[in-house]
Amino acid sequence: MMAKSQTHSDGDLGDLLRVRDGFVLADVDTRSTPGYGQTKSDAQDDLAAGAEEFDELQERLYAQSRENPDSPAVLLVLQAMDTAGKGGIVRHVIGATDPQGIHLKAFKKPTPEELEHDFLWRIEREVPRAGYIGVFDRSHYEDVLIGRVRSLATPDEIERRYDAINDFERRITDAGVHLVKVMLHISKDEQRERLAERLERPDKHWKFNPGDIDERQLWDDYMGAYQVVLDRTSTPHAPWHVVPADRKWYARLAVQALLLDVLERIDPQWPVASFDVEAEKERLAAS
Amino acid sequence: MMAKSQTHSDGDLGDLLRVRDGFVLADVDTRSTPGYGQTKSDAQDDLAAGAEEFDELQERLYAQSRENPDSPAVLLVLQAMDTAGKGGIVRHVIGATDPQGIHLKAFKKPTPEELEHDFLWRIEREVPRAGYIGVFDRSHYEDVLIGRVRSLATPDEIERRYDAINDFERRITDAGVHLVKVMLHISKDEQRERLAERLERPDKHWKFNPGDIDERQLWDDYMGAYQVVLDRTSTPHAPWHVVPADRKWYARLAVQALLLDVLERIDPQWPVASFDVEAEKERLAAS
Repeated sequence: MMAKSQTHSDGDLGDLLRVRDGFVLADVDTRSTPGYGQTKSDAQDDLAAGAEEFDELQERLYAQSRENPDSPAVLLVLQAMDTAGKGGIVRHVIGATDPQGIHLKAFKKPTPEELEHDFLWRIEREVPRAGYIGVFDRSHYEDVLIGRVRSLATPDEIERRYDAINDFERRITDAGVHLVKVMLHISKDEQRERLAERLERPDKHWKFNPGDIDERQLWDDYMGAYQVVLDRTSTPHAPWHVVPADRKWYARLAVQALLLDVLERIDPQWPVASFDVEAEKERLAAS
Repeated sequence: MMAKSQTHSDGDLGDLLRVRDGFVLADVDTRSTPGYGQTKSDAQDDLAAGAEEFDELQERLYAQSRENPDSPAVLLVLQAMDTAGKGGIVRHVIGATDPQGIHLKAFKKPTPEELEHDFLWRIEREVPRAGYIGVFDRSHYEDVLIGRVRSLATPDEIERRYDAINDFERRITDAGVHLVKVMLHISKDEQRERLAERLERPDKHWKFNPGDIDERQLWDDYMGAYQVVLDRTSTPHAPWHVVPADRKWYARLAVQALLLDVLERIDPQWPVASFDVEAEKERLAAS
């Protein structure tokens, strides 16, 4: 995929999607496909080719960590409005590799126990260990998104959280966790169509929740809260990427490319045996 | 796959592999392919077809549980000697479905904290919730396998554990967890070849541990301990299946068939909407 993104795309996808100073969320065209000029059907081939590369890099990342507990991990943080396609990313991008190397956590409404602790308490416990690829389906960012929009904490507390998040992310990146933060960005119209489909199809009813429409009615407030998140927490060590997601095939390809990019930078190596290979061959032959 | 196993096989795979009174482990031909007369290349096609069926049934199982916290779960318990292919089952059978519906747990050597508790303490915490497919890569059976072979507990304690396991499994099956217990069974010669391959290939060295040969030297003791497990804990509510595993393609197909079998017996249904679909369509249109 990285090779692909170099071949097929107009530039480095990570660069194109990265949130820098002055980034304006409202200016993003959610139907656009930055850095990818090919068709949907090409994208499917490229996704399949990228899946093989992802699978090999994941195995190396895991293998490397077996002999060295200080080796790196990867953490994909997925944030989005409802129906934007987080589940599809998990299924089609992450699902392409060995489940044994994945640590997946979906953060729901906090439990009473979780609410008794600082908002990062439940997050900290799910940071992936060395060698794992962690995936957060929603995350600590909910505490400054719905937290802000629904006034679930005081303004001072919300304010405190942006810095707390930056400190937390600085600490885990220093400890070897490579963060890939992604906002999947759909339009309000696209969301209407996707919710309508869930209401049309009885096999999709279970994915619909009347609360989804309540949140939808606060769309502009959410976009405002996302803009603040991007302004305050897109840091050099943990930048945000806004991925236009009205076209699911593009969003999947883009998130895969971001993951391949970080894995290639890690460049994990098969570990050198910590035992005497020839001696073990002799023991095996004698057993 | 179930349709397949009816079409292509000489009988119901679950029936053929199930451990009943009088079962003798030493009589199993580890290279055999009970109930499947086709070739390896047919098996790959059948595995792919079964994967689609598995994926759909998994989604239904998960969906059903969203509205009903008492709905069933599935728990695959995998036990085997080293190199028998547990990892390949997770990757190629379980990996075919949505990671979001899978609860995978690999049980390693118990930690000091775990050792302070009853052997079932750490197991209990990982029993899958309603709607999930749990996978135990090793399990509570280690405590009567290596536990017995290496005398990690007194004979009385080991003795107590068989009944404790049966009680535990009875309780969780009563609570709606459908247990699929599988021993992947390879020959000692096959293990030698697989360990030799790990020693030959630098990209496989990380999978090798000198301790594997120590355990291999106790092969007959382990087979004896497995025979006791099968005698004592293959119950009507939680039967064991011994899957000949010298041919990886057969083992994968067989475990997939066992899972499809239990999922088809559960026959999960898309849940009926708990909200007024028409009213929600109107709210959506107005939003």
